[in-house]
Amino acid sequence: MRGVVMHAPGDVRVEDREDPTIVEPTDAILRLTATCICGSDLWPYRGAEPVDHQVMGHEYVGVVEAIGSDVRNVQVGDFVVGSFWASDNTCEICEAGYQAYCVHRVLMGTVGTQAEKVRVPLADGTLVATPGQPDADLIPSLLAASDVLGTGWFAAVAAEAGPGRTVAVVGDGAVGLLAVLAAKQLGAERIIAMSRHADRQALAREFGATDVVEERGDAGVARIKELTGGLGAHSVVEAVGTQESMMQAIRSTRPGGHVGFVGVSHDVSLPGEEMFGAGIHLHGGPAPVRRFLPELVRLIWDREIDPGKVFDLTLPLEDAAAGYEAMDQRRATKVLLTL
Amino acid sequence: MRGVVMHAPGDVRVEDREDPTIVEPTDAILRLTATCICGSDLWPYRGAEPVDHQVMGHEYVGVVEAIGSDVRNVQVGDFVVGSFWASDNTCEICEAGYQAYCVHRVLMGTVGTQAEKVRVPLADGTLVATPGQPDADLIPSLLAASDVLGTGWFAAVAAEAGPGRTVAVVGDGAVGLLAVLAAKQLGAERIIAMSRHADRQALAREFGATDVVEERGDAGVARIKELTGGLGAHSVVEAVGTQESMMQAIRSTRPGGHVGFVGVSHDVSLPGEEMFGAGIHLHGGPAPVRRFLPELVRLIWDREIDPGKVFDLTLPLEDAAAGYEAMDQRRATKVLLTL
Repeated sequence: MRGVVMHAPGDVRVEDREDPTIVEPTDAILRLTATCICGSDLWPYRGAEPVDHQVMGHEYVGVVEAIGSDVRNVQVGDFVVGSFWASDNTCEICEAGYQAYCVHRVLMGTVGTQAEKVRVPLADGTLVATPGQPDADLIPSLLAASDVLGTGWFAAVAAEAGPGRTVAVVGDGAVGLLAVLAAKQLGAERIIAMSRHADRQALAREFGATDVVEERGDAGVARIKELTGGLGAHSVVEAVGTQESMMQAIRSTRPGGHVGFVGVSHDVSLPGEEMFGAGIHLHGGPAPVRRFLPELVRLIWDREIDPGKVFDLTLPLEDAAAGYEAMDQRRATKVLLTL
Repeated sequence: MRGVVMHAPGDVRVEDREDPTIVEPTDAILRLTATCICGSDLWPYRGAEPVDHQVMGHEYVGVVEAIGSDVRNVQVGDFVVGSFWASDNTCEICEAGYQAYCVHRVLMGTVGTQAEKVRVPLADGTLVATPGQPDADLIPSLLAASDVLGTGWFAAVAAEAGPGRTVAVVGDGAVGLLAVLAAKQLGAERIIAMSRHADRQALAREFGATDVVEERGDAGVARIKELTGGLGAHSVVEAVGTQESMMQAIRSTRPGGHVGFVGVSHDVSLPGEEMFGAGIHLHGGPAPVRRFLPELVRLIWDREIDPGKVFDLTLPLEDAAAGYEAMDQRRATKVLLTL
């Protein structure tokens, strides 16, 4: 089969790779319908994380082609969505809703879903089947549920977005935009998108943003304070992962408020004295997408949300390298790869 | 009146200070019944915070001697307890339960409650009257409510201690010990006190600890993991404020679990990548004691809890310097000053 391999920073190739096979009786093999490139794939692409001939991709939707002898919850022929962490969904950590920390977890990035087929470990716990074969126009949204929507949703939940709350979102990438959508679905009263790109501002407004703030850093914080009677937002989503964005999120939050952070932290250090003084709640990390998948699939299936709109470039898998380049150069927010 | 002044690190004196008077119509003047020395008073005493001829003390119980013209909720003659932050208890932040961040807050340490009398700003919002004049044996517990119990209670609440939960407490000072008491009251199933002092271990067990761990740092984390099926505690209280104690707390918490931190942070820096990977909830800072005061006063009045046991040395105010020395040298956990 064909699949993406990142040889080195900036060097993405589509190559022949071995077809996956059932290894464990709890595995499933999927023939993928679509996959995509994640903002976090840009960290190794830009040399900010080590990379050496690594298979890539952790987002996926597709049709079950084979199942191991212990798999019960999905059947051959089912159309399925899964999280970027495979999880048993039965351990104590999973039952508490933290499937990204399942005691048996497997990172799908190590399997590499930018490919024609993929082996999904712990298929019963990981995969959620749609009610039937989806219409083609639903594919991007179902694919988004696999990570970028699930991550934005978790960020909004971690920030305790909800009725009566003002939610600010730091970061206008796909995750930030979908955190806006999530905050809207969760009933937030006011949603402030922090963005300086006209196209992303427009999508943020479409997803439910009531205000847009273009300022960053301290000026961004001052603007959020201005918009919230000097107090700061109740809920702030951090979806970037830098020192500046993290401090911007923390400082934009009122005492007693909540920061949900999902940007993969790089060279971030949180000053203890400021954290002590801030009085905020901080929660985040890799999203336990599986917790939210059944509800997200239902919302998409019923056409109540359209998160697939974050994909603004669609390419065949063979052109993955061009997709990485477009995201790296910010010509695209999120690239869908077709198969 | 007589009152404590810290001239410089290690130099505590009891001196004649001016009697307080009503300044704002929302003020009350109290004649104190008891006050005490806080673990946080040791930071300047040890030179870890700057200090120069500073009035000291922020914990207090006493009798209302005078009220300003706008005061409605307390009367002359009432016996009252107040938080170490004066707060209006009516602003949006107070109403959300974060009175330590009241938009009009005044730090009682700037007023200095290690004295015969004290001016309490925002008396209506700050003070809680007991149902009557308390028996003498209740005074230490009521005084504890002013900060050390309220802070331990907040830490346990911030760590979401409750039924079915395993709670670990890092720090065996008065706040840590009272966090054990709070976790017990909140219904925690298992409470692990981290302490290597026999007398403090004994008090922790009396307050409800089911286990004691003597190891610290990485060894302490390993022991907590061992006691919790490899997962870590659901809830961890941090009541020290150093880099080691903070990391010990974070690493002792299972993914999705909660850290409540109330140790005043000194030279603490939280590594972003580890925070991202940990998947915990982090909440803390100066405790909004006022949120809990009515309930704490009730529990003490009804003799359901006896937090006053953390005071293991009682001295007259005139001997405050000896009290500081005893706490500094760890000969006392918490010193009560009588008037």
